[in-house]
Amino acid sequence: MHRSRVSTLLIDVPHAERDAADAFWGAALGVEPRTVPDEEQFTSLPHAVPGLVTAVQGVDDAPRYHLDIETDDVAAETARLVALGAVEVRQWLECRTLRVPGGHLVCVIPLHSDPAEFEAAARTWP
Amino acid sequence: MHRSRVSTLLIDVPHAERDAADAFWGAALGVEPRTVPDEEQFTSLPHAVPGLVTAVQGVDDAPRYHLDIETDDVAAETARLVALGAVEVRQWLECRTLRVPGGHLVCVIPLHSDPAEFEAAARTWP
Repeated sequence: MHRSRVSTLLIDVPHAERDAADAFWGAALGVEPRTVPDEEQFTSLPHAVPGLVTAVQGVDDAPRYHLDIETDDVAAETARLVALGAVEVRQWLECRTLRVPGGHLVCVIPLHSDPAEFEAAARTWP
Repeated sequence: MHRSRVSTLLIDVPHAERDAADAFWGAALGVEPRTVPDEEQFTSLPHAVPGLVTAVQGVDDAPRYHLDIETDDVAAETARLVALGAVEVRQWLECRTLRVPGGHLVCVIPLHSDPAEFEAAARTWP
């Protein structure tokens, strides 16, 4: 048995647009953008969306949103989603990036959010 | 004064991939996908993400996610976001589609979610 939930909304933005995006999203959602120590590709938007970690991420790619699914068992969750039709496209540290049916990106990541929010929202898989 | 909040996560998918995406997202998030009466382009994923309306939408375009911001004053919220650098690209019924700094799509829509959730999460703008 393992558990997972949609934990994170990433606003992926080309590096050249990063400052403009950080400023826009902070003002648009009414929060103070915060750099993330040792993870300079991320700008956190704390409490922008209740229950979700929300951040801007600088990428070498076109602008896109993507979702992270956090789990207490990355291998099991990845296998579950692959069995549902997802295809693993990349691995970065402990995170697995999947292309899911329909074409969207989803990353499977280890637990990283508020434990109480994970407890409240996670689903359990056999 | 008006209020707004991020209310909705849309998983936009090319029409040809719609059935596969509906099935994947329902199983992946552990919910029963539901068609939306009179809005057949949408498949609702009820309670997939606490506090957010989550749905698959068939589109004539590449796969993407987008966010909706719901508000009690669409014109005022649109003007606020345009003043922050967003550009209006489309209008559909009462909804305004904006391209925001960094390149992402955001739709500004009238109130449509659980009133208690809006009350709890909305921010107030001068």
